[in-house]
Amino acid sequence: MYHIERYKRNPIVDFKERTWPDKQIEKAPIWCSSDLRDGNQALVEPMVVEEKIEMFNLLVKLGFKEIEIGFPAASQIEFDFLRQLVDRKLIPDDVVVQILCQCREHLIKRSFEAIKGIKKCIMHIYNSTDTLQRDVVYDLDREGIKNIALEGVALVKKYMKDHDGEIILEYSPESFMGTELDFALDVCDAVVEAWGANKENKIIINLPNTVEMTTPNVFADRIEWMSTHLKNREAIILSTHPHNDRGTGTAVAELALLAGAQRMEGTLFGNGERTGNVDILNIAYNMYSQGIEPNLNISNIKEIIDVYERTTKMSIDPRHPYAGKLVFTAFSGSHQDAINKGVQAMKQRNNPYWEVPYLPIDPADIGREYEPVVRINSQSGKGGVAFVMDTFYGFKLPKGMHKEFADIIQRISEVQGEVSPEEIYKEFEKNYIEKKEPLHFVKCVITDADEDGDFSTFVKVTYRQNGEEKVFESSGNGPIDAVKRGLEKVVGKEMKVLDYNEHALTSGSNAKAASYIHMLDVETGNTTYGVGISGNITRSSIRGLFSAVNRLFY
Amino acid sequence: MYHIERYKRNPIVDFKERTWPDKQIEKAPIWCSSDLRDGNQALVEPMVVEEKIEMFNLLVKLGFKEIEIGFPAASQIEFDFLRQLVDRKLIPDDVVVQILCQCREHLIKRSFEAIKGIKKCIMHIYNSTDTLQRDVVYDLDREGIKNIALEGVALVKKYMKDHDGEIILEYSPESFMGTELDFALDVCDAVVEAWGANKENKIIINLPNTVEMTTPNVFADRIEWMSTHLKNREAIILSTHPHNDRGTGTAVAELALLAGAQRMEGTLFGNGERTGNVDILNIAYNMYSQGIEPNLNISNIKEIIDVYERTTKMSIDPRHPYAGKLVFTAFSGSHQDAINKGVQAMKQRNNPYWEVPYLPIDPADIGREYEPVVRINSQSGKGGVAFVMDTFYGFKLPKGMHKEFADIIQRISEVQGEVSPEEIYKEFEKNYIEKKEPLHFVKCVITDADEDGDFSTFVKVTYRQNGEEKVFESSGNGPIDAVKRGLEKVVGKEMKVLDYNEHALTSGSNAKAASYIHMLDVETGNTTYGVGISGNITRSSIRGLFSAVNRLFY
Repeated sequence: MYHIERYKRNPIVDFKERTWPDKQIEKAPIWCSSDLRDGNQALVEPMVVEEKIEMFNLLVKLGFKEIEIGFPAASQIEFDFLRQLVDRKLIPDDVVVQILCQCREHLIKRSFEAIKGIKKCIMHIYNSTDTLQRDVVYDLDREGIKNIALEGVALVKKYMKDHDGEIILEYSPESFMGTELDFALDVCDAVVEAWGANKENKIIINLPNTVEMTTPNVFADRIEWMSTHLKNREAIILSTHPHNDRGTGTAVAELALLAGAQRMEGTLFGNGERTGNVDILNIAYNMYSQGIEPNLNISNIKEIIDVYERTTKMSIDPRHPYAGKLVFTAFSGSHQDAINKGVQAMKQRNNPYWEVPYLPIDPADIGREYEPVVRINSQSGKGGVAFVMDTFYGFKLPKGMHKEFADIIQRISEVQGEVSPEEIYKEFEKNYIEKKEPLHFVKCVITDADEDGDFSTFVKVTYRQNGEEKVFESSGNGPIDAVKRGLEKVVGKEMKVLDYNEHALTSGSNAKAASYIHMLDVETGNTTYGVGISGNITRSSIRGLFSAVNRLFY
Repeated sequence: MYHIERYKRNPIVDFKERTWPDKQIEKAPIWCSSDLRDGNQALVEPMVVEEKIEMFNLLVKLGFKEIEIGFPAASQIEFDFLRQLVDRKLIPDDVVVQILCQCREHLIKRSFEAIKGIKKCIMHIYNSTDTLQRDVVYDLDREGIKNIALEGVALVKKYMKDHDGEIILEYSPESFMGTELDFALDVCDAVVEAWGANKENKIIINLPNTVEMTTPNVFADRIEWMSTHLKNREAIILSTHPHNDRGTGTAVAELALLAGAQRMEGTLFGNGERTGNVDILNIAYNMYSQGIEPNLNISNIKEIIDVYERTTKMSIDPRHPYAGKLVFTAFSGSHQDAINKGVQAMKQRNNPYWEVPYLPIDPADIGREYEPVVRINSQSGKGGVAFVMDTFYGFKLPKGMHKEFADIIQRISEVQGEVSPEEIYKEFEKNYIEKKEPLHFVKCVITDADEDGDFSTFVKVTYRQNGEEKVFESSGNGPIDAVKRGLEKVVGKEMKVLDYNEHALTSGSNAKAASYIHMLDVETGNTTYGVGISGNITRSSIRGLFSAVNRLFY
């Protein structure tokens, strides 16, 4: 139901003195990753500890020097993760971890237990300061809300007395965007004073755009207004924490940098609650495209995508800036033509600058390639190979198989250069579908008994081993299980089917199916995929099993 | 390889006279959809004619009064589509279609053939004007490039003499963002004059952000600079066409509106070349959230998503503003709590305004629901039901099945209100897995012959019909085909399997599999899904077949 009369405009700032529209971004802010806190909290399946460690290591590798790793007082998992980082000595000396905490005594006490043994830690305390939450959530006036913040500062001071390690305080007037500027200023000034911050011992004042409420220029005005009005500005590192509700998170962040923000909290690819936090990589690549050093190691976007997608179980939209699989693909013929001419001209003239129409950066600089038509060369990644198999041949390779097969193609491309889609398919056929030696499946007679249950399926499998025709009989809970058990005896090894997928290659009950079997060699821990095709779904799975066994054990 | 030294900053505008930072968006621009041109061209699988018609009808329903439908002179498919729109009288009287064309005689001639019979049409001509393309693509100086534009105007004038219908001219200095402002102004002024535009007979001057090259404020400066410097401003409808290379397309569009743009070209959900065009719906929902009438019928976002995903084969990112499946889901406990308190307060106080923390708009206003934990009520859509089946029970329903099953749930929720995940699963079981009457599959003996090919699989199927045990024998190209052929004889109807999918419910070769069969009754054209589960993939498929037959024919 359409009820536009229920919405009001949010106020703008009367601030003619603004100077940010005349400025340019000159340098990277201090980056703070919130992937393990704001990002993780908003996942349908939050990360387990091992995934968190993998993400943490990636963030360190990317060059983040400040990493918010959780709210340990609120969650045992986050507490345990923090202890693992400490016990396993995973925090490098030049990386400062940050933890979030509300301004309440039992939580702050518990937070200090969590960070025991950490040399330097940012303690990030916050409370909601906006008009609406003061009213409907807290039922407190301005003084009451300010006292929550000051109580938080006092508690941190109290517990840090017995803490062996440096504490940097960060304070966020949460929902800053809905807070009257004069009140936000009043609270922040009071916090800075209560903490006793000075030029040598700075405090982080973080102004979040918790929910986007206006066009991005209004946020920039608010940042510049705060930056110029804060009493003890040189004692402050001014930080922001944009979200993306109106789809303008990146713009808000960039304009905030023009307006005086020195620090930026966000996540990789904009993961986070609702529409997400600001995408730090997007800002960093934007800087790179203008020759501004982003102070992050962003030259291998595929590795970043790989770890991100695996740990968060989110995937990158095909049109996501810099990272989406379609963003360096030109479908328009005139664009393709102009790009080719631009590349030619650069080469002929030995132009030291990247100047190519429609391509703001050289995809190769960030570990990608331009794909006017899809071409696979030695710099192509698994995405390209999977894309070709899907787009050209209709095989939807399971995600886990992408890398395995791409490695095969890459070895070829390193020798011969570009690999055509036809050659990719030929390799797929050779390495998977036609992987019929030494065990070559011939036929199978299957008898299924009445009900589900143990060993109700009997199979009699005819196969050739090195040319000689043999037969095994076996039983199991279904044809895959029964054939697998038979193959274990033939090979003399224990194996486990980790996953399988099947899909029709075309429509119709007699259409061909492709089956993918992910198999584990229990003894060595090695795994591989096998692939089978047939108009018969059972036979296609059995072929997949034989393919996997031939790949894994011979 | 990291080569930051190859990148230069793009110039900003020295324009202290700017007024846009003090403005607010007051009203919606004239919207022009480019879904059928810029959007369609950038699809991996471009739309076929019937899909284009479906998209066109959606755009009309949404209230677009200007719709760019292609480049008919460059593509036979686009030419044919345009003729279909005319011949089938699908263009409403109040909708103006727009076609794109380069400034070349044979293309403009062909364009006029394409639009024969259309009462009112926007002829959109363009040429690249930027420094780089003047150099590397065209090898022409400023005068040469300006002459291309003027030649285009002359050609349109020439061919419109014999054309029976109104022509509105649109001119784009393509790659405006890389064009020196004084030159862009010179070309545009010359085009306006050559066309003879005036206050009564306006021309559309469209300033595209073909590739984003700077922070969004610079584009706003350029728009305001052009708007104030154009000679015959009142003869002009000032239009923009933002893209999203830097992830700031929405911000660019909004700041351009502040800066004087009166018209906006873009697409639904930001489809389009590379990172896409600007997302018109995003801007429209942003306006709505501030009480500004967007002049588009955007209250049913699910229908828009449904047609969009079907025709473009793209899908909406889970964090896409307003449309993504996670954007109205609060995972944070404190957010959930504040939202609940906000909703309570609104009700208690009879607040005429929507004022709820963390939710900038009421999801119900746009046909969605807030999901703190997933709850399904009579307003829930198919996405919610599929989400529950996946998240809670691991069933990945094929996309086509979402609506069919959601309709079943919706009928229940209309009677009883909220439906719990448990109840949803129970209905799934009842309507699909346990759909065993009148035909109840008992067991099957399958013999597979050696090779793929016709009728090499023999099945002997035992089943119960209304309690009486019976047997049929059949053969086919695989177990699905063979059982389907047998069932055709049992039922006495011709059926076709349109698609099938299987997936493991857990890991292991003896794990249960779920099979989904999409079946067509050839005589009536009705279709349905059937579902089977078993530890045996063959049996799970056969159960799926029986389930489908019981649902479809009885």
